[in-house]
Amino acid sequence: MTPRILEVRKKVLNKNDELARSLRDRFHEAGVFAMNLVSSPGTGKTALLQKTLATMLAHGERVAALVGDLETDNDARRLAESGAPVRQIQTHGCCHLEANMIASHLEGWDLGQIDYLFIENVGNLVCPASYDLGEDIRVALLSVTEGEDKPLKYPAMFHSSDAAVITKMDIAEACDFNRETAVANIHSVRPGMRIFEVSAKKGAGMDAWIDYLMSARKTRFHP
Amino acid sequence: MTPRILEVRKKVLNKNDELARSLRDRFHEAGVFAMNLVSSPGTGKTALLQKTLATMLAHGERVAALVGDLETDNDARRLAESGAPVRQIQTHGCCHLEANMIASHLEGWDLGQIDYLFIENVGNLVCPASYDLGEDIRVALLSVTEGEDKPLKYPAMFHSSDAAVITKMDIAEACDFNRETAVANIHSVRPGMRIFEVSAKKGAGMDAWIDYLMSARKTRFHP
Repeated sequence: MTPRILEVRKKVLNKNDELARSLRDRFHEAGVFAMNLVSSPGTGKTALLQKTLATMLAHGERVAALVGDLETDNDARRLAESGAPVRQIQTHGCCHLEANMIASHLEGWDLGQIDYLFIENVGNLVCPASYDLGEDIRVALLSVTEGEDKPLKYPAMFHSSDAAVITKMDIAEACDFNRETAVANIHSVRPGMRIFEVSAKKGAGMDAWIDYLMSARKTRFHP
Repeated sequence: MTPRILEVRKKVLNKNDELARSLRDRFHEAGVFAMNLVSSPGTGKTALLQKTLATMLAHGERVAALVGDLETDNDARRLAESGAPVRQIQTHGCCHLEANMIASHLEGWDLGQIDYLFIENVGNLVCPASYDLGEDIRVALLSVTEGEDKPLKYPAMFHSSDAAVITKMDIAEACDFNRETAVANIHSVRPGMRIFEVSAKKGAGMDAWIDYLMSARKTRFHP
């Protein structure tokens, strides 16, 4: 990128960071634990979220979701079937979510009624890494179909995340997925990172993932 | 995006377009047919390219490849095994290839010795759509694991491409891939687009794909 575009980008990022900080304050006052889910297109963010919302609702948890896409409200419609409050953010060409999009799509929601806010980012392993959305934790998803080297090729995304979820474990064998290599690659860019291995389709690994979210919220609000 | 960043971005794009035009002229003078392969991370651009390079080399074709990634030269090393001239472009954080990166990585290559130049873009379904690299054709890849709705969610990428390749057809069944829906979605953003269904792993569909490239080059240079 040219120095000129870098300079303008820095100003935009500073403004985003400021807004993200104020969002984070609002979330904490209201007891909202916010999570930012990032991955390539097609890694299965929506499928994981569908299953997560349904399971947590069944346990009586108060969950909600914001979901970002360039176009379409397909994902919001899929997620709304769970019964949770869900809103689509259409970015109309923008390749990532920004804090101001989160703020404007929260309007009219009573944050006091939400304990877990899931934010599904635009499918993109690059640009969303630079934009803080006021989340408590960022979770990077990697599917068994994508190749074990993605953490090495997109280090910023994995390095800026708090946990990783390996998705579509049900087809790991059909894809010749090498679990050890994937785990080693994740840990080489983010040593010690928590890694969950799930199949949203079959349900495998969902309990450990949801336990993690619930205990992360507890640690945040009742340390 | 803010008006300010849009304005700067427009200038960068104009400059890129200019350089892409001059690249295209150089390619045509030298008889180089250039292709820009775009997709999500992990769709299988490198696997398709590996098989394509090996097959075309075996037919005596003069092929070469440039391959873009944020970090690592894994892909260039994989592709170089074919015996074709291959160079890695490391973008160090930039989420797409630009024409100037192509120009600088061609230095020292005799274009007169290359008939087919494959350019593997950074894995990203958004930003590369805006950057002309001087290619003759742009090819968008979509894997059976990603969900049939990707063309609707990332319309700019599919709309700006000349052909689509559906990859990993060998695991279509394990992924509950709905071929008719995927084809209908591609055609709804780009009516009549040529679609190839391949498995680089098993070889299925490779002949039709390579025939297409060879006849596209013929049409370009000997109409």
